[in-house]
Amino acid sequence: MPLTTEQELIRYLAKLFGSTPPSVVGIGDDAAAIAMADGKTWVVTTDALVEGVHFLKEEIPPEDLGYKAISVNVSDIAAMAAEPRYAFLSIALPKGCDSSWIVRLLDGIKSCCDEWHIAVLGGDTVGSKRDLFLNITLIGTANADQVRYRHTAKEGDRICVTGYLGDSAGGLKALENRCHRSDGIEYLIHRHFRPKAHVEYGRWLGALLGVHAMMDLSDGIASDLQRLIASSCKGAVVDLAAIPISPELAKVCEKYSWDPLQLALSGGEDYCLMFTVAEEAFEAMRRDFETAFAAPIFDIGTITEGKELIYYDRGKKVDITYASYNHF
Amino acid sequence: MPLTTEQELIRYLAKLFGSTPPSVVGIGDDAAAIAMADGKTWVVTTDALVEGVHFLKEEIPPEDLGYKAISVNVSDIAAMAAEPRYAFLSIALPKGCDSSWIVRLLDGIKSCCDEWHIAVLGGDTVGSKRDLFLNITLIGTANADQVRYRHTAKEGDRICVTGYLGDSAGGLKALENRCHRSDGIEYLIHRHFRPKAHVEYGRWLGALLGVHAMMDLSDGIASDLQRLIASSCKGAVVDLAAIPISPELAKVCEKYSWDPLQLALSGGEDYCLMFTVAEEAFEAMRRDFETAFAAPIFDIGTITEGKELIYYDRGKKVDITYASYNHF
Repeated sequence: MPLTTEQELIRYLAKLFGSTPPSVVGIGDDAAAIAMADGKTWVVTTDALVEGVHFLKEEIPPEDLGYKAISVNVSDIAAMAAEPRYAFLSIALPKGCDSSWIVRLLDGIKSCCDEWHIAVLGGDTVGSKRDLFLNITLIGTANADQVRYRHTAKEGDRICVTGYLGDSAGGLKALENRCHRSDGIEYLIHRHFRPKAHVEYGRWLGALLGVHAMMDLSDGIASDLQRLIASSCKGAVVDLAAIPISPELAKVCEKYSWDPLQLALSGGEDYCLMFTVAEEAFEAMRRDFETAFAAPIFDIGTITEGKELIYYDRGKKVDITYASYNHF
Repeated sequence: MPLTTEQELIRYLAKLFGSTPPSVVGIGDDAAAIAMADGKTWVVTTDALVEGVHFLKEEIPPEDLGYKAISVNVSDIAAMAAEPRYAFLSIALPKGCDSSWIVRLLDGIKSCCDEWHIAVLGGDTVGSKRDLFLNITLIGTANADQVRYRHTAKEGDRICVTGYLGDSAGGLKALENRCHRSDGIEYLIHRHFRPKAHVEYGRWLGALLGVHAMMDLSDGIASDLQRLIASSCKGAVVDLAAIPISPELAKVCEKYSWDPLQLALSGGEDYCLMFTVAEEAFEAMRRDFETAFAAPIFDIGTITEGKELIYYDRGKKVDITYASYNHF
């Protein structure tokens, strides 16, 4: 069996370790969920960041790297509608790594942990021959009935997202192209380096019965929505005109002739939430959400009976095949 | 502040993340312990293994690497007198890593998980530029009153270990010296590649009130006992003549003129348990343990009021300064 892509390896792992205890949801969601005797569910996620693959040590300030390493895990916990609680931190440091760099990295880690009242309870600090490696395991808790999963989308649900898409990808592209640091570019780079997890949104949405499925957007909505519908055995139609693009991204894309839609659909690292909500609950949810948070909800499509992900643009079906990045 | 050794970095981390919620024991033990509402305690440990630092990909069969990666975490859970339950697995694979090698690695992981009925609930599979990284997070559970820590040794306690020391270090030395694979050498290498965690021993010992402190031996008893007494604000005297050396290690050491005591004290990776037990409970504990498991308990010294670790050899104080390996 060839295991040359991340998806093949995940499928193999899911098969190998697929049988889990009945009170547990394992591989295949943003986090594992373990039901406890007291009506609480523990959700656990883990994420690895590797130098030269996920970040370039020379490009990202260490404070931002530390902040982001925690924040992307917090986003997985938010996606389950849970509250982040306890973190475990493994760091493999190459020989001769500068002390002040490490202190700044840990400052960034601490600043994100403090933001969410996360206690760092342990970890492992080891050496590495050449590359820096970070691994975070984050545990969160929620009431069992408020946890949300990927596999529970229902036909007819509206598909919504809690933020603009493509900003982070725009920031990365600006870094790669060494664009002049105008205000718009600075904003996009900040969104790339310091993604803010939507914890409060997730918990608020998890308390609504009408919200059926949820996940966070880490690899770009094109592949993430594909995962959500595959997991729910459903299809989806998406209205490209409804994909939310920030004014900053729109302006930068116009200036540099970049395609904002490509960045929004397949760029990745947005770390906002995507969820599906019953059609009849949608309007009240949106109104109450906007009242509670003074922030918009964007509805971009509908869950369908089929198994396909279909894009429409102003009423016409369009063929797009944006691929997400394969780390392997 | 210089952070050039693992110990300095751990001290810095412990200071930075030292304030934990009251129901929690954080950095500084084999695993973190989180007290739950239902009288159970969750213990959580995490360990990173880095190619070129902790293992050489060409030297260790991938099945053994996978087995060992899980087993060393199981040993941390055993050290808390808990039962291993849920594992999370991060793998960073260099480009072009052979599929059959990965399958064999995962076989080894699965075989250790199956041995202890551990469910693998998640993880992260990513690419790596050059080196292979593995990170395991393992969650275990125990009744709150049966969890054992490092910081609870009492003056007058006997210090005991649950297995022979130095076998794994002997196996590593045999590999480094490319010794001829005689039976004794094969045994030592097997102990190095496939350490068996002492889960049943740990749980049995945790049920005894007289057992005060416990940890597993991963870096060699010389440094591990130093940690236990520092954590307990106590001292210790150790009788070198009582350090248990296996017949196999003794024979190999004689043949190659190696010092078995150096391997036993500072070699590391024994993954048996060290615990302290009230003097008056010691004899009954040893008798019952040997009846229950048909395996010996070795008592090697006593916890003292002072802060020092002192070695005796046949009644005479001796000065030894075996250092443990510093990965940095």
